[in-house]
Amino acid sequence: MKVLGLDPGSRASGFGLVEYTAGAFRSFEFGVWRESSPRLSARLESLFRRCEEFLEKSRPAAASIETIFSGKSASSVFALAQTRGVLLLACARAQIPIFEYEPLTVKKTITGYGRAEKPQTREMVRSLLSAGQVQIPLDAADALAMAICHCHHASAPNFDHPAAAC
Amino acid sequence: MKVLGLDPGSRASGFGLVEYTAGAFRSFEFGVWRESSPRLSARLESLFRRCEEFLEKSRPAAASIETIFSGKSASSVFALAQTRGVLLLACARAQIPIFEYEPLTVKKTITGYGRAEKPQTREMVRSLLSAGQVQIPLDAADALAMAICHCHHASAPNFDHPAAAC
Repeated sequence: MKVLGLDPGSRASGFGLVEYTAGAFRSFEFGVWRESSPRLSARLESLFRRCEEFLEKSRPAAASIETIFSGKSASSVFALAQTRGVLLLACARAQIPIFEYEPLTVKKTITGYGRAEKPQTREMVRSLLSAGQVQIPLDAADALAMAICHCHHASAPNFDHPAAAC
Repeated sequence: MKVLGLDPGSRASGFGLVEYTAGAFRSFEFGVWRESSPRLSARLESLFRRCEEFLEKSRPAAASIETIFSGKSASSVFALAQTRGVLLLACARAQIPIFEYEPLTVKKTITGYGRAEKPQTREMVRSLLSAGQVQIPLDAADALAMAICHCHHASAPNFDHPAAAC
């Protein structure tokens, strides 16, 4: 199963492609799409194109993204959600089903603890991917965590596909 | 000057096309794009396509949209902002410059009063467009108000184009 995890941000969005086979996770590609234009519409346009191209090239079976930005202010949510909408659109147009998970579920799936801090999650992601000392930017680690979370849940025998999709 | 006003909503987005010539406003077309799919990604995809088609057909000189959803909860902002991102993307891809205005500025421009209620704004929109008893849905009236607001500001001699675009 090949899954793309996405971590939207207003100027930097993490992405991570994970393959899950025979109980082992591997990552082919991960990184951060950084957008530097001072104009929001230009950043969204560039991000959309990059995401579209990546989906076209990598053809994941599913995408995985956080449900809500809990505990964030309305203004942070505003910036993140516009980017999230554009990433969802890119996946929908590429006919890639999108699954969403609450932050608590992701942390619990990855670290076994729902209140884990970002560096803990990153360390577990590195360990699950057997990535050794490979540098993984924080935003990319969050995206990889999303992808691993979906691989984990989707491979469970009672996983309800349509109900979890957004 | 032909301007498209946009009023994003999670399931219903208002749009209104306004032409401003020789001090008079006219509207060619307005309405509400309603999206009924239970799946957010499908709603965003359909809305994007409709907005793209509308822009292609109508070729406005500019689009006008609200800056921030002030006074709304993070969860309402989350839903609206995803739609807003997709509408901004459609405009950016059609190379139509987007201008944003604060809700207070829009109300003040339309009614002369920053704290005007929605029905007051709708009545002023109807009056400014000489629309008589034509039915204007509330979401469309909000979009028309956005378009009128931009026509008004953009026709001022000291209007600073690049600074106001988003």
